[in-house]
Amino acid sequence: MKLSQSFFYTLRENAKDEDSVSSNLLVRAGMIKKTSAGIYMIMPMGKKVLAKVENIIREEMDAKGAQELLMPALIPEEVYEKSGRREAFGSNMFALHDRNDRPYVLGPTHEELFTMAASMDGKSYKDFPYNLYQIQTKYRDETRPRFGLIRVREFIMKDAYSFDTDEEGLAKSYDAMYDAYCRIMDRLGLKYKIVRADTGAMGGLLSEEYQALSPIGEDVIVGCEGCDFSSNMEITEVMDNKPESTEPKVPYSIKETPNAKTIDEVAAFFGKQPSDFVKTLLYNADGKIVAFCVPGDRELNEAKAMKLLGANEMELAAFDDVERVTHAKVGFAGPIGIDCPVYMDRQILKMHNFIVGANKTDHHYENVNVEDFQPEAIADLCQVKEGDVCPVCGKPLTFEHGIEVGNLFKLGTKYSKSLNVLYTDQDNQQKPIWMGCYGIGLERCMAAVAEQYNDEKGLMWPDEVAPFRLAIVVISNKDERQMEVADQLYDFCKKHHYDVLLDDRKERPGVKFKDMELIGIPHRITVGRGVKDGMLEWTERSTGEKREVSLDDIEDRITEIYEK
Amino acid sequence: MKLSQSFFYTLRENAKDEDSVSSNLLVRAGMIKKTSAGIYMIMPMGKKVLAKVENIIREEMDAKGAQELLMPALIPEEVYEKSGRREAFGSNMFALHDRNDRPYVLGPTHEELFTMAASMDGKSYKDFPYNLYQIQTKYRDETRPRFGLIRVREFIMKDAYSFDTDEEGLAKSYDAMYDAYCRIMDRLGLKYKIVRADTGAMGGLLSEEYQALSPIGEDVIVGCEGCDFSSNMEITEVMDNKPESTEPKVPYSIKETPNAKTIDEVAAFFGKQPSDFVKTLLYNADGKIVAFCVPGDRELNEAKAMKLLGANEMELAAFDDVERVTHAKVGFAGPIGIDCPVYMDRQILKMHNFIVGANKTDHHYENVNVEDFQPEAIADLCQVKEGDVCPVCGKPLTFEHGIEVGNLFKLGTKYSKSLNVLYTDQDNQQKPIWMGCYGIGLERCMAAVAEQYNDEKGLMWPDEVAPFRLAIVVISNKDERQMEVADQLYDFCKKHHYDVLLDDRKERPGVKFKDMELIGIPHRITVGRGVKDGMLEWTERSTGEKREVSLDDIEDRITEIYEK
Repeated sequence: MKLSQSFFYTLRENAKDEDSVSSNLLVRAGMIKKTSAGIYMIMPMGKKVLAKVENIIREEMDAKGAQELLMPALIPEEVYEKSGRREAFGSNMFALHDRNDRPYVLGPTHEELFTMAASMDGKSYKDFPYNLYQIQTKYRDETRPRFGLIRVREFIMKDAYSFDTDEEGLAKSYDAMYDAYCRIMDRLGLKYKIVRADTGAMGGLLSEEYQALSPIGEDVIVGCEGCDFSSNMEITEVMDNKPESTEPKVPYSIKETPNAKTIDEVAAFFGKQPSDFVKTLLYNADGKIVAFCVPGDRELNEAKAMKLLGANEMELAAFDDVERVTHAKVGFAGPIGIDCPVYMDRQILKMHNFIVGANKTDHHYENVNVEDFQPEAIADLCQVKEGDVCPVCGKPLTFEHGIEVGNLFKLGTKYSKSLNVLYTDQDNQQKPIWMGCYGIGLERCMAAVAEQYNDEKGLMWPDEVAPFRLAIVVISNKDERQMEVADQLYDFCKKHHYDVLLDDRKERPGVKFKDMELIGIPHRITVGRGVKDGMLEWTERSTGEKREVSLDDIEDRITEIYEK
Repeated sequence: MKLSQSFFYTLRENAKDEDSVSSNLLVRAGMIKKTSAGIYMIMPMGKKVLAKVENIIREEMDAKGAQELLMPALIPEEVYEKSGRREAFGSNMFALHDRNDRPYVLGPTHEELFTMAASMDGKSYKDFPYNLYQIQTKYRDETRPRFGLIRVREFIMKDAYSFDTDEEGLAKSYDAMYDAYCRIMDRLGLKYKIVRADTGAMGGLLSEEYQALSPIGEDVIVGCEGCDFSSNMEITEVMDNKPESTEPKVPYSIKETPNAKTIDEVAAFFGKQPSDFVKTLLYNADGKIVAFCVPGDRELNEAKAMKLLGANEMELAAFDDVERVTHAKVGFAGPIGIDCPVYMDRQILKMHNFIVGANKTDHHYENVNVEDFQPEAIADLCQVKEGDVCPVCGKPLTFEHGIEVGNLFKLGTKYSKSLNVLYTDQDNQQKPIWMGCYGIGLERCMAAVAEQYNDEKGLMWPDEVAPFRLAIVVISNKDERQMEVADQLYDFCKKHHYDVLLDDRKERPGVKFKDMELIGIPHRITVGRGVKDGMLEWTERSTGEKREVSLDDIEDRITEIYEK
């Protein structure tokens, strides 16, 4: 592409409404432009990057024998009602009615349609296995779109679905995708970890996530000092390794605690530590009020809590609801005598004589023990903390932040059973198909790479995803010899189908260099005065390293970066 | 692709709910599957064809220097309100609200967003011209989706937009797209005509359509026996070439016409011809009732009528409305004394002493003349008929049917003015950008090719769009030599990146041949018993022609079809 004849722009100023390094740089580099919250235009320079990401994904999927198809985004609502997922997605799904008032949704993921599609073939065990995928636009009405392309409401996803006749077959298909995803992440240049994750609204037997490491990542990846344990914080078990308190249990009693509401205030009042308390947290889970009890120095893990309840949506209870079930002002909830079901973290079993709210304004109970109330269930409900013991080796856990760029799910027979998609086995029996599903967000991959590869000058794309691998910058486009050499190199690249950018604009050299650095072209040839002595300058974006290359060698050097 | 290891199916029975040859065959060939009215899954075999169509379009756009980008489909409704098109699209636009109750629409076309995007560069006259395009999913809530992929509600469109500083520049950009579209249509193998068309809801200076010829086409293409005149029926002028009647005008009078309502019944009653009548048709145009008068032997052209009124939506008036403005039962409307505006076709000026409805049940007026009522406007309002005279040369007009697969619009400054997108000219003046827009429907192209290329056995894709150019069919997959040769040929093709299908399934030869014919693979090599004598059979799908090819020659023959 010759810049003098192209649509091209960059912005000098930081974007006002972007909240991450990658989104600010992508906007400034003329790669994306926001149209509304969580929705972007992918501008020509950004489309080049996105097309490279798409291409890598398609190549690796095809290499595993997966077959591409294309599903609609506009899907009758009943499709998700039949599978039982309409409620689970709730207001995350964009919903609409057509001109005949028929209800539709915009697909957030396509398990249902793929299961239907699969039923076109797969009638006999002989037809299996196969893997179908698409690269298609998804819609999710996120509560808080943010970080540019990382959490958006309209985005392209590669979603693949494997179909097998048994669990072993599924394991094989899953492994092939695991391998393909590793190859994709490697080619994208991403630094990533693969972690166990919650199966969530997808359901199924197993889920793993590909997490691109980044301080802005919304997921906490739990690792271990001593072994290769790796897990999403949402599902990491808090090990039950503390010894039980040896303090003799005594009967509980009520105590007036005026002007003390927070754990710290009440602890100060009693002269105790937060770990001597049990917090009672009230939530609205699918419309029902429930209480969760956790040790005073711990946080509730909402994902674990929702899983325990089988809830689709859960949020902190409204003040009215708290006052109704506790018969007290907010801040005095406790498990004794509360008018709602109580779920208790299992660590409390080891605690003796703890303090809880008394469900009475300005009052707490002290010396409470687990025998004093009746929880509905006792389970691991807490968030792990850095330094907790590893569930595998017992060494301290470590935390990192990650951006979820891909995920794998062993769905098992969940969808084929609910949608009744069966095959005939060797003994002529009808059996449900075993499914896996495998997703990668394209824009999110692009943003994660941008988040990992940048400096104060701008983006620093790895070769495989750069919009152009090489930029040829002409210092003076009035200098005939400079233009002649630049055009020769440009033609050489075009002849070999190498993607190359020629900056032949009437701009000062400084402007051109800044632009090439901002948009992150990995290699740059500068055609300047040296050209009359047969010399060019070669600059690496990632290191800033410069060296002289002679006209005689330049074609070999170019070939090297494209053919390596 | 080896069929034995792939997801693959065909259907023996005709599709029950498909109303065209192409959609029936595409469904039976396992290329598409309907999910709801006007919405389809593109199955793996169909995706192969669609990808080839996409590729041809992208190559030809890139060859003209157009730059690809990607817009969202989910667009704030206000974007279309600002440009004044929200009303024009009416209920053809899918509309929805997000979780925060903000109104959105699904984009039916993207002039507005491209105009906004263009304003990122194009600040000075020096930045022009440029052409931006996308290959992206569009949504239109069609009243009557039909003919499979031809009239759908979700579809992929290539839409390009050119940006210039003046009308001359626009003309150049338009010509480049005209040329690219001809190349695209030729490569798709389509038999087509380019016709002048109505600018409609798009507005602008000029519109031309690429019409793929087909009896099921919903557009009537008007041609001429004597010259190369070619036009969409919607805008073809009915020439005003009849001499005025020489009959002396007489005063009109009312006549009771019991049991006669249709033109034919009333004509029989009066002993006259339909051409002696004037029909009065009542419509609801954007909520207002209006009457159109046309000669009794002519049909109203609704596109012309809407254009005259500047109406966005128009449909026949409801019975209540007819009775309210005529004060009579339905069937007796006429221009004299009706309670709504009357618009009159200009041919009526030449008629004397005609018959009209009397706005009184079971009554007509006879001997009416144009002086007897006051039309709001007199214009060309009729549909042309085959045999009418050509507006250019006067010879008889001919009709053909076409499927609109592409269109070009010279938009001029309509959008840049309404959205205030300006550039600075040489004299430092702010001026609006000149725009063109250029669309091609991908699925519709695919369906139009399928509609033009088929026979009683199935589809007959031209080489450039076939899912696979060549099929290798093994007669017996238990015969080692046959499998060995087939695999050799398959590997030869893969090595050269030729798209090839190997039918190595455990099926009877007849089933395999039928499938290859149904899915329309242009060339077939049959590996059968002859292979032990070094001979293979080569069959052409389009002609059915068969010939023997020796093993020594086969690679050259294969190379020929891919490299030609």
